[in-house]
Amino acid sequence: MKVPKQLITFLKKETHFLIATHISPEADAIGSSLALSMAIESLGKKTIIYDKDPVPPACRFLPGYENFVSSLPDINPSAPLVLVDCNKPERAGLSDLNFSISAVIDHHETENGFGDVRWIEPNAPATGAMIYHVIKELGINITKEIATNLYAAISIDTGTFRYSNTTPEVLRIGAELIEIGVDPAFVSENLYQSWSENRFRLLLNTLNTVEIYDDVAITTVTDAMFKGIGADPADTENFPNFTQMMKHINISVLIRELEKDYFKVSLRSKNRSINVAKVAEIFNGGGHKNAAGFRIRADLKTLKENILSAIRKKS
Amino acid sequence: MKVPKQLITFLKKETHFLIATHISPEADAIGSSLALSMAIESLGKKTIIYDKDPVPPACRFLPGYENFVSSLPDINPSAPLVLVDCNKPERAGLSDLNFSISAVIDHHETENGFGDVRWIEPNAPATGAMIYHVIKELGINITKEIATNLYAAISIDTGTFRYSNTTPEVLRIGAELIEIGVDPAFVSENLYQSWSENRFRLLLNTLNTVEIYDDVAITTVTDAMFKGIGADPADTENFPNFTQMMKHINISVLIRELEKDYFKVSLRSKNRSINVAKVAEIFNGGGHKNAAGFRIRADLKTLKENILSAIRKKS
Repeated sequence: MKVPKQLITFLKKETHFLIATHISPEADAIGSSLALSMAIESLGKKTIIYDKDPVPPACRFLPGYENFVSSLPDINPSAPLVLVDCNKPERAGLSDLNFSISAVIDHHETENGFGDVRWIEPNAPATGAMIYHVIKELGINITKEIATNLYAAISIDTGTFRYSNTTPEVLRIGAELIEIGVDPAFVSENLYQSWSENRFRLLLNTLNTVEIYDDVAITTVTDAMFKGIGADPADTENFPNFTQMMKHINISVLIRELEKDYFKVSLRSKNRSINVAKVAEIFNGGGHKNAAGFRIRADLKTLKENILSAIRKKS
Repeated sequence: MKVPKQLITFLKKETHFLIATHISPEADAIGSSLALSMAIESLGKKTIIYDKDPVPPACRFLPGYENFVSSLPDINPSAPLVLVDCNKPERAGLSDLNFSISAVIDHHETENGFGDVRWIEPNAPATGAMIYHVIKELGINITKEIATNLYAAISIDTGTFRYSNTTPEVLRIGAELIEIGVDPAFVSENLYQSWSENRFRLLLNTLNTVEIYDDVAITTVTDAMFKGIGADPADTENFPNFTQMMKHINISVLIRELEKDYFKVSLRSKNRSINVAKVAEIFNGGGHKNAAGFRIRADLKTLKENILSAIRKKS
């Protein structure tokens, strides 16, 4: 990966930055933003780190997470902006503001041409890996705190080195970050073993609804289950992964009731299986090849039939 | 890690080897043995790879697994032996045979002084990492097949780089193995997403029995559940990991009914939590700091009370 010279020039020249990342953030968004902020501030510059949504509980072990702000009362609208892990201001809930100059550091597909300085690398396993290179290029010492943020960012987006985006390079970055002081078990325990009991019970109730149709597993979370247990909206995030433990399941569908006859549908597919973004598009949704979703008004029985039929069409 | 010179001399000098690994093998035992066998045979030597138990279904994606034998009709009892991932012949079910000369390559604590040539490295994250160094020291080219076996061996014993034994060195070995041709997602899918539907349903039924006492989670598998679903004895292997997803759970207990009033108990603890081997010892069992177990005749209700009381004593 090659960091564009203009990005380095921009970061060296400006003296204060608004670092903003996407709504519904996870550890790549939060960890990448924190690592960049710490690195820039070590040069004597000032940063504000912004997420419209609060830092999720699963990320509240990351060094410096308490510096995130979710409102911008005092921000100078002409502050230089750095968008991290997203590439248009709307994804960060920033559509109403104007910026004197802006930069984008992201590994998602380009959504539009926003940004005076753009570094978009869809092949990067995580934005955290890109921030690592930015920090190196700036000649900044990686502290243990920066390293932990980068390691968590890389971990969440590679499934801690389990997904197909696990490259030799990202493993070597991980090795260097551990040498700097990252405790890999501490990061993994916080990412994967920090569930509340309510979340665990909601998972059990959800998995108990499993219906299997050939290589498709459908699970359903009703509003009653959700409220009965007292779970958090973010709690269902990786529920579809569990039915994928079965060898013959290629596609996992999680249907979550938002209100009567209104559902949020999450689709996951295994690496060499179908493109679920194409399935989601049939229902006016979208996403990536292996993770997509949509919202729909329907009755549950018809919805399940329609999803199965859409999957069959795209298989 | 430094490979003892005597081990290299032994492997270079002898021309045929019996490579044996432990009963109830997993991917570190199977992958390490296969990698060593392939490397030695590339020098024109002969090997037999032996496990008393069959290669488990979860390892039947490893290149060359079909070369494992589980009986030794034609073996010359004076064949040089290499014990892999265990350090006494009894662990490999080999107590009745004699060997002209024997070597041990293992990362478990020494059980006795067996072996003319011994390389025991309890700090090695996996026996697979030790075999990597043996192959390098022998100057043998690592093929894609050898690399996949080593990568799977390292993956299973580090939780694919999630456990506290994840070192910078083992991540760099992983990087090199991917460069040689390992598909990391293929290995992870086979290790973690190759469950049968029966195993998945047994997990659900087991998790539904969860009882939580402060930081202890107890789950129970009855013989009736086991037979009703038609599951395999190896199927419960990592069941205790699931209750550890809860942040406040430090100790996971899985009680499996073997026959009426006779149970197998598995204990797991989180990294910085209690030493469950000490708990198992109270019941004449044993194991490691974070994974131990025992078998016991008892009634279920009293057993649970006694386990909880033993955990409290060691906390």
